[in-house]
Amino acid sequence: MSIQMHDLAGADPALRFSPYCWRTRMALAHKGLPVETIPWRFTGKDAIAFSGQGRVPVIRDGGTVVSDSWTIAEYLEEQHPTPTLFGGATGRAHARFINAWADSVLLPAIARLVVRDILDVLDPKDRDYFRSSREARFGMTLEAVQEGREQRLPAFRELLTPARLVLRAQPWLGGQAPSYADFIVFGTLQWPRCVSRFSLLAADDPVAEWQQRMLDLFGGLACAAPAICADAG
Amino acid sequence: MSIQMHDLAGADPALRFSPYCWRTRMALAHKGLPVETIPWRFTGKDAIAFSGQGRVPVIRDGGTVVSDSWTIAEYLEEQHPTPTLFGGATGRAHARFINAWADSVLLPAIARLVVRDILDVLDPKDRDYFRSSREARFGMTLEAVQEGREQRLPAFRELLTPARLVLRAQPWLGGQAPSYADFIVFGTLQWPRCVSRFSLLAADDPVAEWQQRMLDLFGGLACAAPAICADAG
Repeated sequence: MSIQMHDLAGADPALRFSPYCWRTRMALAHKGLPVETIPWRFTGKDAIAFSGQGRVPVIRDGGTVVSDSWTIAEYLEEQHPTPTLFGGATGRAHARFINAWADSVLLPAIARLVVRDILDVLDPKDRDYFRSSREARFGMTLEAVQEGREQRLPAFRELLTPARLVLRAQPWLGGQAPSYADFIVFGTLQWPRCVSRFSLLAADDPVAEWQQRMLDLFGGLACAAPAICADAG
Repeated sequence: MSIQMHDLAGADPALRFSPYCWRTRMALAHKGLPVETIPWRFTGKDAIAFSGQGRVPVIRDGGTVVSDSWTIAEYLEEQHPTPTLFGGATGRAHARFINAWADSVLLPAIARLVVRDILDVLDPKDRDYFRSSREARFGMTLEAVQEGREQRLPAFRELLTPARLVLRAQPWLGGQAPSYADFIVFGTLQWPRCVSRFSLLAADDPVAEWQQRMLDLFGGLACAAPAICADAG
């Protein structure tokens, strides 16, 4: 029986754009584990109440329920050691830093570039919740958050410097092969890629070149996924 | 025969403050390798010309010369696999991200808080070189770079968020034991600690608590090292 995963979806149930769910999708594909994804909306708290919390991803693996993308990655690594996501305890410990960096630096910066665009792809029933919860968080309208993003793009790209330096020295954040570190950063970048036509990366950025390699992994899993791409305009 | 290491020193030859040399010192101690350090000054390019470049750390291990702290760490791991610095290829690949983050985010931010203080600890013969090379880099006087640092301290502390999040979840950046990731970030923080009385961290910061544990490692190696500490005032 394949793993079931509740996965954030837009008005189009095929549009999947959660940065955390993408980390899990890629980790599952890396392990070669079949998954049945269940489209979930922000207002569908009841549908995942069985997990004891209110956010996705949530996976159900036989009788086991696991939530939180990092906890899921640890669970998958323990249940299915190969191919490895972390390359051992130290690799996992170091990946936690990359996870913390993605969550605390990359993700908030991306939000300030595309958060208003997200509204347009959401299921109508999610829109009021999304607008009011995010506007409370930012202390301003979504339109105001996103305003002037063209001018803020160079500063955003600067934030990716650590990843860029690494990708100049090695093909993957995981070294000679992709690891969960790749899925963390790639998953985070899938979020804007899926919801916005606003291009975050210059085409000749080593991060963009790596992103293309990531899109090609697992038979083009992430590439084939519906997205409101810059080049789909 | 013990490894020799050229190590940046101040006017007091016992004052060692290079963020890169501290990474190497800690890595050598982790491996239990005895080291003979040779005080080096910025203007002593001739003394390390044998390494084919002009920066420290440089180590000489028998007939082998290695420079650049990251390259030295890889060399030590290869020559002396245990105790491990990286925990395998993936752990090393992930540590490279932390190294790139320390170099591109942490180090420049620290420089803007203490660069003028460094001048006071330097050997007189290094001062003109240091001032002119750094002022060219910043495009302003060292005094101007450092000005208003109290106001910039909260933003600096915010930059440490990824490390802080990790250290709330595990005792070391390396997980249950220190790894080279710890030496990277700790070494970077030894730099301001050794040259300035300006305190960068709040005492109750998990990063400060971890820093104290790091200072206690290897018989208090880094704690015993001469430093112009905030609390030495």
